[in-house]
Amino acid sequence: MPELRQDPASKRWVIIARERSRRPHAFVREGGMPGPGLAHLPTCPFCSGNEEHTPPESFALRDGTTPNGPGWRVRVVPNKFAALLPAGSTERKTENEFFRWMDGVGTHEVIIESPVHNLYIPFMDDRHVQEIVGTYRERYLTLREDTRFKLILIFKNHGVSAGTSLDHPHSQLVATPVVPTDIRATFQKAFDFFDDTGLCVYCRMLSEELRLGKRVILESDSFAVFHPFASRMPFETWIVPKKHGASFGLITVAEADEFALVLKQVLRKIYFGLKNPDFNLVVQTAPVKDEFEDYFHWHLQILPRLTTAAGFEMGTGIYINVALPEETAQFMRDLKEPELASPSLGPNVAEPPA
Amino acid sequence: MPELRQDPASKRWVIIARERSRRPHAFVREGGMPGPGLAHLPTCPFCSGNEEHTPPESFALRDGTTPNGPGWRVRVVPNKFAALLPAGSTERKTENEFFRWMDGVGTHEVIIESPVHNLYIPFMDDRHVQEIVGTYRERYLTLREDTRFKLILIFKNHGVSAGTSLDHPHSQLVATPVVPTDIRATFQKAFDFFDDTGLCVYCRMLSEELRLGKRVILESDSFAVFHPFASRMPFETWIVPKKHGASFGLITVAEADEFALVLKQVLRKIYFGLKNPDFNLVVQTAPVKDEFEDYFHWHLQILPRLTTAAGFEMGTGIYINVALPEETAQFMRDLKEPELASPSLGPNVAEPPA
Repeated sequence: MPELRQDPASKRWVIIARERSRRPHAFVREGGMPGPGLAHLPTCPFCSGNEEHTPPESFALRDGTTPNGPGWRVRVVPNKFAALLPAGSTERKTENEFFRWMDGVGTHEVIIESPVHNLYIPFMDDRHVQEIVGTYRERYLTLREDTRFKLILIFKNHGVSAGTSLDHPHSQLVATPVVPTDIRATFQKAFDFFDDTGLCVYCRMLSEELRLGKRVILESDSFAVFHPFASRMPFETWIVPKKHGASFGLITVAEADEFALVLKQVLRKIYFGLKNPDFNLVVQTAPVKDEFEDYFHWHLQILPRLTTAAGFEMGTGIYINVALPEETAQFMRDLKEPELASPSLGPNVAEPPA
Repeated sequence: MPELRQDPASKRWVIIARERSRRPHAFVREGGMPGPGLAHLPTCPFCSGNEEHTPPESFALRDGTTPNGPGWRVRVVPNKFAALLPAGSTERKTENEFFRWMDGVGTHEVIIESPVHNLYIPFMDDRHVQEIVGTYRERYLTLREDTRFKLILIFKNHGVSAGTSLDHPHSQLVATPVVPTDIRATFQKAFDFFDDTGLCVYCRMLSEELRLGKRVILESDSFAVFHPFASRMPFETWIVPKKHGASFGLITVAEADEFALVLKQVLRKIYFGLKNPDFNLVVQTAPVKDEFEDYFHWHLQILPRLTTAAGFEMGTGIYINVALPEETAQFMRDLKEPELASPSLGPNVAEPPA
């Protein structure tokens, strides 16, 4: 019998299609791992040495090198094809006094994670991943000062079916001048739960998941990783801080460093376990004005693109998941570092260009 | 400057990325139209003569031929890999008194639109398309009698990036035992509009679109077709009945016949204009218990899959649309039947198998 499961926070239902379900190993990329690719691509605007092909950087980690030249470790630039732009006002306008619109005011940045074209997070040394997460935090804290920006979303698209054609490792940041309707809706449900119980629904979810254990992948002192009860897609993965906090922007440097190590471990498991699948990664965080609320809880979601959302999902918002989170979690939990590090499973650390 | 536009009904924002926007002809499939394919495929379970490879039919249009044999025009069968199944109860259960779930009770049917493998709606004669829409109506009216079913969704996935690997022309129907959270949210917004103004927000939208005209593709006596103001993706197309009605299930036979002709005309424009793009089609309709409400308005949405929703869309529900609805509407409006019928643009009507 198939099941309907409800996400306790957003109250959205998903269908767990047991009849159609596939075992976890069925989602491993067929035909093996794609090759490591080139460490440097002369035509790539994100590669070291090609800095003039991006807009001027808004931030970079450098040791005394000149801005917009080589010698950086992580580099942030405005997106050349920005969805939103900093100039403009937040005034609402209408067409025919009915259709509401406003300037597309905001910020859209690219966080270039490495000067090396093929150096993905699973292969970086720990400090490098900490510098990426530190850059996320840095940009968040800078952009939250602009009172026109209501939500700051950090995300990553990896692979063509996840919506990117750029192989060079990068994340993105968008600051929006409105609170998205869907996020407001989830917030309202979380608020209702708090009103009823006096608890943050995510804190409760976390404690239940840790108590049950069957959907947990790994734990550190301050973070837990699990496949949520109402996973929308196979291998959906959440990294949730154990300490309550509504906003990613309020984590300490020490927490960000620990978070980076957990993120690397999780992305290693996904990269080697499923053989470099396409995925989206999203840092779900409170709107800026709600950073101190009791009822929301920031977390990171990884959404592998192993299946395709179709008409039913688009028409209802109900996802059909053809894997059991309990089974996919076990598959991921059982992957251990010796296997992950096996050179037969993938490329070794890429060498930087000469 | 990019724009944010708000859908008046759901209140969801979309970004119209003017800086990144592409002209309508940029979305026409490169490399020309895929060939017409085979009229009959021995291994296809939906082809005439292969009826034993599907579950027994729940409905078919036949002239005296035997059920589950050849000789049908439109045929409805339970989905062999159903997301929901009719047995089971709607009782809510919990895991650890926190995670809520229920049986996946419902119905999941396939509406096989033709016995011919490559006969798509744009090539069918008018009466055939009317029989398909008549079948949609028939199945809706039958299934709404089961009080466990709260919403009956009719949809269609066309092409691999729209989530189907089956070429044979077919639609699907899913009856769910819950009202999807997203549909309830849109309902609430439409209710608020009604409460404020005494008008159905869709009726108002329709009259504004017809008055402005710039996003309208075509009109019949009872239906209008336009690219909505806050289109989520390039060439998003709505077919909206001019007469208020919350539920598709309540249309008359005459209205269904007219609707079928409009649908065929729209799908011809999409097929020839964009050279057979992948798309999803969804009949948005009220939950069964709300069929007579004043504030919702059934309509059909066609969602071409010309771009890929990525991390930003998944994290916020805000779509980034890289085309202007005013421009895509004009492109579609200007396509006329002589061009559409040009044999150089695509296959002629397929011959049924001997």
